[in-house]
Amino acid sequence: MRVIGIDPGLRNLGWGVIEMAGSRLSHIANGIIHSAGEELALRLVTLHAELTEVIARYTPDAAAVEQTFVNKDAVATLKLGQARGIALLVPAQAGLAVGEYAPNAVKKAVVGVGHADKAQVQHMVRHQLPGVQFQGADAADALAIAICHAHHLQSSQRANAAMLGRDALAISAGQARIRRARP
Amino acid sequence: MRVIGIDPGLRNLGWGVIEMAGSRLSHIANGIIHSAGEELALRLVTLHAELTEVIARYTPDAAAVEQTFVNKDAVATLKLGQARGIALLVPAQAGLAVGEYAPNAVKKAVVGVGHADKAQVQHMVRHQLPGVQFQGADAADALAIAICHAHHLQSSQRANAAMLGRDALAISAGQARIRRARP
Repeated sequence: MRVIGIDPGLRNLGWGVIEMAGSRLSHIANGIIHSAGEELALRLVTLHAELTEVIARYTPDAAAVEQTFVNKDAVATLKLGQARGIALLVPAQAGLAVGEYAPNAVKKAVVGVGHADKAQVQHMVRHQLPGVQFQGADAADALAIAICHAHHLQSSQRANAAMLGRDALAISAGQARIRRARP
Repeated sequence: MRVIGIDPGLRNLGWGVIEMAGSRLSHIANGIIHSAGEELALRLVTLHAELTEVIARYTPDAAAVEQTFVNKDAVATLKLGQARGIALLVPAQAGLAVGEYAPNAVKKAVVGVGHADKAQVQHMVRHQLPGVQFQGADAADALAIAICHAHHLQSSQRANAAMLGRDALAISAGQARIRRARP
């Protein structure tokens, strides 16, 4: 199963694709989509077109986007929101379910603590994806988001498996009772 | 020339299309695109698909989007930004230039003063687009944005015409001087 993580930004939108096989993760690709200089609507068209191309090329099965806002500056928050709208739209247009994670949830999933710094996050991303080369800080962040989502999907799968296991036991217990109840 | 105005919002995105023939304006259509209940990424897909359909149906030549933000609430501003990203993206994907106007600029263009209330704006939109029926308050706002952009395009055209006129005079003056300078 392939997971794409996206770190949204208007100037630099980071993306990272990983492969998840059971509990093993491996790196597929990462990069940064730049948009600058032109008018806002054209910058959004660039982000949309290039992110659509990344998803077509690396065919992820699931996506996750960081859930950030800049609390102190409404203009910056609006700008980020516009880029984030594109980051959520593109994978959903490709039919993928899109997870959303707060920055602290991403750090906790990757490093183990919610207040880790960038260097710690990058160190742990390198550790979990041996041989990875970051195309930049935003691409490293995007890979961390993908890892966080992969962990989340793995726990859901384990929970489902455990649930199925319990159901199977309950069913066999039920069948045993039915067998015992028969004359 | 046809102009579409867009009042962006995640729950209710207003749109209005008008026709501009010289200084005369007329109403073509207006409406509201709703998105609710589902997850955010799917709501953005709905806004994108329906706004794309509106533009395909009414074939505007120019677009304008309101430039708002909610200063007191970062979460609301981020949400609005995400919807606004789609509102800017869709006309730009259709090859239209997208104007942006602050709410006060829209009110000033339509009513004559920047601090007009909603009732005054709707009254003046009705006055300028005889027979119009609003599909809702957000659609009325979108028509006001379209009227504001139409006025702006009309002034640019007049300015260009005046400039061309001056250039023509300058050219003929130049030619006259050249003619006079000839032996």
